[in-house]
Amino acid sequence: MSDASKSSSAARRPVVQWGGSDRRQQEEQMRASVLHGVGDIRMEDRADPVAGVGQVLVRVESVGVCGSDVHYYEQGRIGSHIVERPMVLGHEAAGVVASTGSGVTRVRVGDRVSIEPGVPDFTCAECLAGRYNLCPAMSFYATPPIDGALAELVLTHESFAHPVPDSMDLDSAALLEPVSVAVWACRKASVSPGDHVLVTGAGPIGLIVTQVARAFGASEVTVTDVNPDRLSVAARLGATRVIDSRSTDGTPFPVEPTVLVECSGHPSAVTSGLRALARAGRAVLVGMGGDEAALPVSRIQERELTVTGTFRYANTWPTAIALVASGQVDLAPLVTGHFGLADAEAALTASRSVAGALKSIIRPQV
Amino acid sequence: MSDASKSSSAARRPVVQWGGSDRRQQEEQMRASVLHGVGDIRMEDRADPVAGVGQVLVRVESVGVCGSDVHYYEQGRIGSHIVERPMVLGHEAAGVVASTGSGVTRVRVGDRVSIEPGVPDFTCAECLAGRYNLCPAMSFYATPPIDGALAELVLTHESFAHPVPDSMDLDSAALLEPVSVAVWACRKASVSPGDHVLVTGAGPIGLIVTQVARAFGASEVTVTDVNPDRLSVAARLGATRVIDSRSTDGTPFPVEPTVLVECSGHPSAVTSGLRALARAGRAVLVGMGGDEAALPVSRIQERELTVTGTFRYANTWPTAIALVASGQVDLAPLVTGHFGLADAEAALTASRSVAGALKSIIRPQV
Amino acid sequence: MSDASKSSSAARRPVVQWGGSDRRQQEEQMRASVLHGVGDIRMEDRADPVAGVGQVLVRVESVGVCGSDVHYYEQGRIGSHIVERPMVLGHEAAGVVASTGSGVTRVRVGDRVSIEPGVPDFTCAECLAGRYNLCPAMSFYATPPIDGALAELVLTHESFAHPVPDSMDLDSAALLEPVSVAVWACRKASVSPGDHVLVTGAGPIGLIVTQVARAFGASEVTVTDVNPDRLSVAARLGATRVIDSRSTDGTPFPVEPTVLVECSGHPSAVTSGLRALARAGRAVLVGMGGDEAALPVSRIQERELTVTGTFRYANTWPTAIALVASGQVDLAPLVTGHFGLADAEAALTASRSVAGALKSIIRPQV
Amino acid sequence: MSDASKSSSAARRPVVQWGGSDRRQQEEQMRASVLHGVGDIRMEDRADPVAGVGQVLVRVESVGVCGSDVHYYEQGRIGSHIVERPMVLGHEAAGVVASTGSGVTRVRVGDRVSIEPGVPDFTCAECLAGRYNLCPAMSFYATPPIDGALAELVLTHESFAHPVPDSMDLDSAALLEPVSVAVWACRKASVSPGDHVLVTGAGPIGLIVTQVARAFGASEVTVTDVNPDRLSVAARLGATRVIDSRSTDGTPFPVEPTVLVECSGHPSAVTSGLRALARAGRAVLVGMGGDEAALPVSRIQERELTVTGTFRYANTWPTAIALVASGQVDLAPLVTGHFGLADAEAALTASRSVAGALKSIIRPQV
Repeated sequence: MSDASKSSSAARRPVVQWGGSDRRQQEEQMRASVLHGVGDIRMEDRADPVAGVGQVLVRVESVGVCGSDVHYYEQGRIGSHIVERPMVLGHEAAGVVASTGSGVTRVRVGDRVSIEPGVPDFTCAECLAGRYNLCPAMSFYATPPIDGALAELVLTHESFAHPVPDSMDLDSAALLEPVSVAVWACRKASVSPGDHVLVTGAGPIGLIVTQVARAFGASEVTVTDVNPDRLSVAARLGATRVIDSRSTDGTPFPVEPTVLVECSGHPSAVTSGLRALARAGRAVLVGMGGDEAALPVSRIQERELTVTGTFRYANTWPTAIALVASGQVDLAPLVTGHFGLADAEAALTASRSVAGALKSIIRPQV
Repeated sequence: MSDASKSSSAARRPVVQWGGSDRRQQEEQMRASVLHGVGDIRMEDRADPVAGVGQVLVRVESVGVCGSDVHYYEQGRIGSHIVERPMVLGHEAAGVVASTGSGVTRVRVGDRVSIEPGVPDFTCAECLAGRYNLCPAMSFYATPPIDGALAELVLTHESFAHPVPDSMDLDSAALLEPVSVAVWACRKASVSPGDHVLVTGAGPIGLIVTQVARAFGASEVTVTDVNPDRLSVAARLGATRVIDSRSTDGTPFPVEPTVLVECSGHPSAVTSGLRALARAGRAVLVGMGGDEAALPVSRIQERELTVTGTFRYANTWPTAIALVASGQVDLAPLVTGHFGLADAEAALTASRSVAGALKSIIRPQV
Repeated sequence: MSDASKSSSAARRPVVQWGGSDRRQQEEQMRASVLHGVGDIRMEDRADPVAGVGQVLVRVESVGVCGSDVHYYEQGRIGSHIVERPMVLGHEAAGVVASTGSGVTRVRVGDRVSIEPGVPDFTCAECLAGRYNLCPAMSFYATPPIDGALAELVLTHESFAHPVPDSMDLDSAALLEPVSVAVWACRKASVSPGDHVLVTGAGPIGLIVTQVARAFGASEVTVTDVNPDRLSVAARLGATRVIDSRSTDGTPFPVEPTVLVECSGHPSAVTSGLRALARAGRAVLVGMGGDEAALPVSRIQERELTVTGTFRYANTWPTAIALVASGQVDLAPLVTGHFGLADAEAALTASRSVAGALKSIIRPQV
Repeated sequence: MSDASKSSSAARRPVVQWGGSDRRQQEEQMRASVLHGVGDIRMEDRADPVAGVGQVLVRVESVGVCGSDVHYYEQGRIGSHIVERPMVLGHEAAGVVASTGSGVTRVRVGDRVSIEPGVPDFTCAECLAGRYNLCPAMSFYATPPIDGALAELVLTHESFAHPVPDSMDLDSAALLEPVSVAVWACRKASVSPGDHVLVTGAGPIGLIVTQVARAFGASEVTVTDVNPDRLSVAARLGATRVIDSRSTDGTPFPVEPTVLVECSGHPSAVTSGLRALARAGRAVLVGMGGDEAALPVSRIQERELTVTGTFRYANTWPTAIALVASGQVDLAPLVTGHFGLADAEAALTASRSVAGALKSIIRPQV
C-alpha cells in the first residue's frame, strides 16, 4: 500500500490569513461529508472543533468505510438507531494530533494516532467495572446523533487517541477499529492454542477475525462464506480450511470446532455454527442480524455451549496495535479502494458496485 | 419429615422362599418397577445385581420422582431418547450400602449414601477435562437403555455413592440430585452477593434454585410462575419477590436482574428473561423446552449477555451435601407425597392429579 | 447501636460568629482533626471545601478508625508512604450530602451516603480495565498527602458517594469500607458454597471477612488468632471453628481449607496458612506485613496453590450495601467505642489502651 | 534432525525362537537402564511388561533426558521423593504401540505415540474436577517407586498414549512432555496477544516456554539467563529481547512484563521477576528451587499480582501436538545429543560435561 497519507498531511490546509482586514472574527472552517438522508451525502463547511479539557483534536488522514456506514447511507437507520438530523459518517479513523486541550498529558501535537471511536462517561457502574463499551452514556462516532470522522478534523478524548508506531501506515491505523472488534471476539471466546475456530462470513470482519484467531494461537481456523473470492482471501490470510457454505451445508466438520465466531449475521449461519460446535464450545455472535433468531436451545443445553455477543470492544487498542505492528495481522489485502472526501458516496457504494471490493478507505485531507 | 427409611431397612426383605427344598443355588431376586410402554408400569422380580470392581451395591431407600420420569411414563421418550425396551425409572436416589466390589475403598457397607446417577467412562477427553457430565459414554439411570433406581437394589461406582451425614434423612439425600442441578446452574452463572437472580418457573427445580441462589449469596431472587401456590412456596423459601407472569408480562423489574436461571422450559420465559437482564448479564437455561427457540440475538449482542445451558452437573455432590446439612437448603417443603414401590404409578401421576403436588418420593423397600 | 448521628446532624454547626459586625465576606470554617507529627493530633479550623464539577460535599457523621490511621499516628508512615505535611486522618466515612457541584446527577443534597475513600483518575489503562484500585493517580483519603475524613466536611466524586438505605445507620455506612475489603478478598478467592475458608487473624477485618465469607456461601469458616476474646466474637459472628493459634500450631485441620484469607500480616500465619491449603487452594493476602516473607514455594507448586493480595477494592460498594442492609453482615458487634472529633486521640489509642476494643467510631459533628 | 528412530525400530528385536527346544517356558526379556544408587546406572534384562485392561505396551524409540533424571542420578532424591529401590529413569518418551490390552479402543498396534508419563486414578475428587495432575494416587514415570521409560518397552494407559501425525519425528514426540510443561504454564498465566512475558531461565524449559508463549500470541517475550549462549538460542527461537541477568540486575524493563514464567528455580529470579511485573501481573513458578523463598509480599499486595506454580500438566497433549505439528514450536534446536540405551550415563552427564548441551535424547532400541 502506498502511504500518501503520511506526506499529504503537511500541506493540507492553507495558512490562515490572520493579517487581512476582516478575518479576525472569522472562525476557521473545515470540510465534512454529511449524511442528510437516505442516499444523500453532501460536502459541507463546518466550524473547526476546538479541544476541551482532556480532549485532542485530530487531523483525520484515513477513514475506513464500515458496513454500518453503508447501512445508514442506504436505510437511514440501524435498528433503533435512526438518523434524524444530518450526521457525519465514519468511525474507523486515524490521523495526526493537531492540538490538545488543557490537562492532556498522554499524547502530543504531531503524534500519529488511531482513534477509538466511542468515548464513555468514565464514571458510571459499567465504566468502573471495565465494561466501558456498555456505558449507557457512550458517545460513539457516526451513531445518531453523534458525528463521525468523515471530516478534516475530529475531537476525541486523549485516552482514545492511541499513538501508533512510525512503522504503521495510517490506513492500517484506521483499521485498528475492526481489528479491535476481532480482538474482542477472540478474547470473549478465550481463543488459544488447541482451539479450532469456525469463522462464518468472510467479509472484512471475518477476514480479520481469521488472522486474529491465528494470532491468538488457534490451531485450526475454518472459514465459511458463499463467495469463493472471499474464501480465497481467507485462505491466503491464514484459514486452514475454507468451505463454500452453499455446497456443504449440513456436512459435519472433520474436527468439531471448539469456537464459533459468527461474522455474517445470517440466522442460518448462527444455527448451523452452533450445531457444529464441540461439547463445551463457545460462540461469539459478531455479525448483526435481525432482532431475534431461532437458536438450537436443546443443543446449547446438551453440549453446554456458551453463547455471547459483542458490542464494540473495550481495552483492545494496545493489543490491536501490537498485532498489526508485528505483522501478525496484515490489513493491506483488505483495502480495495481509496477515495477523497468528496468521493465519499463512491466509497460507500463500492461494496455493492465493485467486484471484489472489501474495504474502502477515505482520505479526508484529499 | 419422619424418617421411616432409617428403621425400615433392617428387616426389609423376606427370606427368599420360592418353594423348593434346596434353594442354595437359587439366585436372589429383588423387586423392580419397570416401564414397559407408555402408561405401562409393572412390578417385576429381577436378579439381584452384584457389585463388580470399584462398584457398590446400594439398598435403595428413597427415590424422588422427576419430571423426566413422568415424561418417559407419559410419552415413552424425551427428544431423541426413546424407551425401546423395558426400563426401570428413577434417578434421584439414596440408600444404604449393601455390599462393595473389589477395590472399593471410599465407602463401606452400611454407609448411608446419596447416589449420583450418571457414571462416565472416566478416561475420555471430556472426563479428563473435568466435564464428566459431557462424557459421550455416560451411563445415566433411567436414560434409555440404562435402568434407574426404582428397585430394591442398584449398582453404582464407589465415587458416585456419596456418604451423607447421620443428620440427613434419606429423602433429602435422594433430593441432592435436583440440588445438584441447582448448584450447577448457580456455578455456571457465578452467582454471588450483589447479584439479582431471576428464576423463571417455580416447580421443584425453580424452588431449589431459589434457595441455592440465596445460599450463593444472591442479594435478590425474583421468581416468576403462573401458579400462585407455587409462588407462595417460593416466597417462603427465600424469594425476595414473586411475580405472576400472567399479569405482569412485559413490565420491567424495579432492579434489572444480573442473572437468569430459566427453569420452566417455556420459550417466552427464555425470551422475556433475557430481555430483562442487565448489561453483561448471565443466563443459564435449565428447563427443557423444544429443540429451537427464538432468542433475542440483538439484545444478547447489545448487552453482551452470556447464555449457556446445563446438562446434568459435575462435582456438585459435596457442595449439595453441605448446603442441605447446614440447613441453607430445606427440601422438606418440596416433598408432597410418599409411595411404596408398588405404587410407583400413583407417584408418577401425582404431579397432574394432586393439587399442590411438588415432589413425590417412592420408597422401594416399602 | 444508638444512632445519634441521624438526629445530631440537623443542628450540627453553630452559625459562624467570629465577633465582627459584618461577617458576609468571611469564608466559612470547619473543624478538622489534623496529624502534625508522631503522636501529635490537633484540632484546627479550615476553610470549608467547595464542591467542584462532579463532586459532592459531604457532612461527615461517622468515621471508623482503621489500623492504618493508628499506624500513621504512631509511626508517621506506612512503608513508603510518609506523612511529610500535616494531614487529616480517617478513610472509613459516612455522612449526608451537603451540596453538589455542577454536573452531579447521581446523588442529591440530603442523601445519606457511604464514602468510598479513593477516587482514581478514571481514564488511565488500569481504570479503563476495571481495576481502578490500581490507578497510579489514585487520591485516597488519609494517604499522604491527601487529607482524610476526620473533619466536619469532605469532598468526594459523586460516583464515590454511595447512597445507603434509610434503614442503615451511618456507623454501619462508615464501616462499609472494611466490608468492601472483605468483599474484595472473597471475590478474589471466588468463595462459594462448598468452600472451607481459613481466616487468619480475628481483628476487625478478619471478623468481617468471616461474615462475608459466610454470605458468599462458604460451608465452613475456620478462624485463628492468639486472642481468645476475639475468637469468641468470631464464633458468634459465624465461624464454624475457632483455633487459638498459639496452642495448635502445626496441627492439621480436620478438613483442608480450600481458601485462605490472611488478615493478620504475620509471616508465620501466611506460611502455615498456605501449607494448610487443599490442592488448587486459593490464598488472598489482606493483612499488611513486612516487605518480604518466606513463602513455601515448593508447596505452591506441588499443590498448584494460587496466591494473590488485595490493594483496597473496586466495585464493591453496592455489594457491601446489600450485605449489610440484608443483615448478612452485622457490624454493630465490632463497634466498641464512640468519640467526638475533639477526642480523636483517644479513639486512635483505644485499640491499645482499652481491653476488648475492636473498632472506634469518631463523630465529627459531635 | 535425522530420524533414525523411524527406521531402526522394525528390526530391533530378534525373532522369538518359539520352535526351539527349551524356550517355551522362557519369558521374554527386555533391556532397561536401571538406577541403583547415586551415580550407579546399570543395564539389566527385565521381563517384558504385558498390557492389562485399558493399557497399551509401547516400544520406546526416543526418551529425552530431563533435569529431574539428572537430579535423581546425582543426588538419589528430589525433595521428599527418595530413590529407595532400583528405579528406571526417563519420563519424556515416545514410541510405537506394540500391543494393546483388553478394552483398548483409542489406539492401535503400530500407532506412533507420545507418552504422557503420569497416569492418575481417574476417579478421585481431583481427577473428576479435571485436575488429574494433582491426583494423590498418580503413578508417574521415574518418580519413586515407579519405573520410567529408559527401557525397550513400557506400559501406559491408552488415554495417555497420544498418537502423533506421521510428519512428526519421534524425538519431537518425546519432547512433547516439556512442551506440555510450557503449555500448562502459559495456560495458567492466560498468555494472549498484548502480553509481555518475562521468562527467567533459558534452559530447555525456558526455551520451550519462549516459543509456546509466542504461539499463545504474546506480543513480547523477554528472556533472562546468565549464559550468553542460551540467550542466543532464545533470541533465535522467538524472544524479542534477551538480558544477561548478571549485568542488568535491577534495571527496569522498558515495558513492564504482564506475565512472569519463572524457569530457573533461583530465588533471586523469582523475587526480581515479581518486582518487575505490571499491576495485576501474573506469575507462574515452573522452576524447582528450595522449599521456601523470600517473596515480595507487599508488592504482591500493592500490585495485586497473582502467583501460582505448576505441577506437571493436565489435558495438554493435544495442544502440544498441534503446536509442534504446525511448526509453531520447533524442538530440533534443543536436541544436542543422541545416545543408545547403553550410553544412558553419558546422556545423563552431558548437561554438565558438554559445552552448549541442552537436551540429550536416548534411543532405547539402539
